[in-house]
Amino acid sequence: MGRVTVRRPVLRLSEDGSKRRQDALAAEEPLEIRVDGKALAVTMRTPGHDVELAHGFLLTEGVIGSAADVSTARYCDSVDDQGRNTYNVLDLALAPGVEPPDTGVERNFYTTSSCGVCGKAALDAVRLKTRFSPAGDGVRVAPETLATLPDLLRERQRVFASTGGLHASGLFTSTGEPLVVREDVGRHNAVDKVTGWALLDGKVPLSGTVLMVSGRASFELVQKAAMAGIPVLAAVSAPSSLAAELAEEQGITLVGFLRGSSMNVYTGAERITGS
Amino acid sequence: MGRVTVRRPVLRLSEDGSKRRQDALAAEEPLEIRVDGKALAVTMRTPGHDVELAHGFLLTEGVIGSAADVSTARYCDSVDDQGRNTYNVLDLALAPGVEPPDTGVERNFYTTSSCGVCGKAALDAVRLKTRFSPAGDGVRVAPETLATLPDLLRERQRVFASTGGLHASGLFTSTGEPLVVREDVGRHNAVDKVTGWALLDGKVPLSGTVLMVSGRASFELVQKAAMAGIPVLAAVSAPSSLAAELAEEQGITLVGFLRGSSMNVYTGAERITGS
Repeated sequence: MGRVTVRRPVLRLSEDGSKRRQDALAAEEPLEIRVDGKALAVTMRTPGHDVELAHGFLLTEGVIGSAADVSTARYCDSVDDQGRNTYNVLDLALAPGVEPPDTGVERNFYTTSSCGVCGKAALDAVRLKTRFSPAGDGVRVAPETLATLPDLLRERQRVFASTGGLHASGLFTSTGEPLVVREDVGRHNAVDKVTGWALLDGKVPLSGTVLMVSGRASFELVQKAAMAGIPVLAAVSAPSSLAAELAEEQGITLVGFLRGSSMNVYTGAERITGS
Repeated sequence: MGRVTVRRPVLRLSEDGSKRRQDALAAEEPLEIRVDGKALAVTMRTPGHDVELAHGFLLTEGVIGSAADVSTARYCDSVDDQGRNTYNVLDLALAPGVEPPDTGVERNFYTTSSCGVCGKAALDAVRLKTRFSPAGDGVRVAPETLATLPDLLRERQRVFASTGGLHASGLFTSTGEPLVVREDVGRHNAVDKVTGWALLDGKVPLSGTVLMVSGRASFELVQKAAMAGIPVLAAVSAPSSLAAELAEEQGITLVGFLRGSSMNVYTGAERITGS
């Protein structure tokens, strides 16, 4: 679709003066995800791997658990003012017997507790929804292996190399073999593209794997790992408090500040060999 | 409320071996924003400045345009399992005559076009909602002033200094005087806290100001600047394609990769003196 980057003129100012040039920007466009014709969510994403993204999103929402739960995925006939298909509306038909989501599923997610929302309620909601708990996953990973992942991820970030503007998410085996890397302007989308890829390839639950993300580890990313059965989540930067709480609750190994040969292990240290 | 950071034990691995220590994590908790008792949105945020955050959010959504549009803001009596108020549900009562939002406002935002969503529809939706267009703002900013902002922002990031885990957003005058700096695990929340602060202080529309953000510039951040009447948005990292398109459409000066004395001016270069 050729929309992963967009070229724009830019005025570059530096100590050497100013000059005009063309710059490549990471493409950002809205994707509306529909289920059986009904709008479920709109996400601002980098176009490409949309079908994977939508599958990963529905996996996180607890709507589907395997590729067989979706019978078809197709772009709607949405057109721009030049009559071209925008490829920005994707409709997924659920297989017979799969319960459709409430249209308000995303918003209602944290509001199940009658006392209002709190950190505890958010944790409870994830626990109720997880089909593939990684808690019992006996995989072991060497710190030396984890230390190789940031470079392996960066080498595969093709769009970042030209724009400096994307998050990346990569799935690796426990010995550091890359399975898939995806990029997106939204870090949650990059993870959805990865778990959606795995789901379509019959790999979910993702036992024995490591998910590496380019930025910080938020509650939302740990939640996505939990929903896909991923036992180890590693991030280049810091986790939030609720990310660590959820990782502990779900039996996920959470590694942060993975830089060079150094790292912080917040939860599940028993999976890191030698520690 | 003492929840801006949370201390947790961590296992630190490095070439010097492993050691256990206490680490400070940026707090992340859900905030439910209600309008007249009805749930509008849940955002994962760092506690603190919640009233500002909620005002900034409603400003972006086009629900309010001044502090007078909200008659009261109060935390609901939501309690955790120890019976303590969680301070995670905030209810804002609109002043008489202010039209309440559709509960589905956030989700429906981009879906106004019958052809489905596309970049164009997203731009149109913002244009329709802006009360304070920055297009005619004649402010001028020197590149030397812009070059000072990243350090001014960083110096004021108190929580980042201890956790390495927060986004920041700062509002400055055109001569580089800091007006306010806010931090949050979510970059959109950091901006909402800033515009909400300004709204409560009677400063919206924010004519003649510069908004500086610690990370990338997405569509969403440009939208927030547009809704608050901010004429100049500067980011440490890259903008997305739709961020640049919306900035152009709204007459906002968009600066990216602001590092040292270098920067890229994507739109509105006429406001940068000497360029």
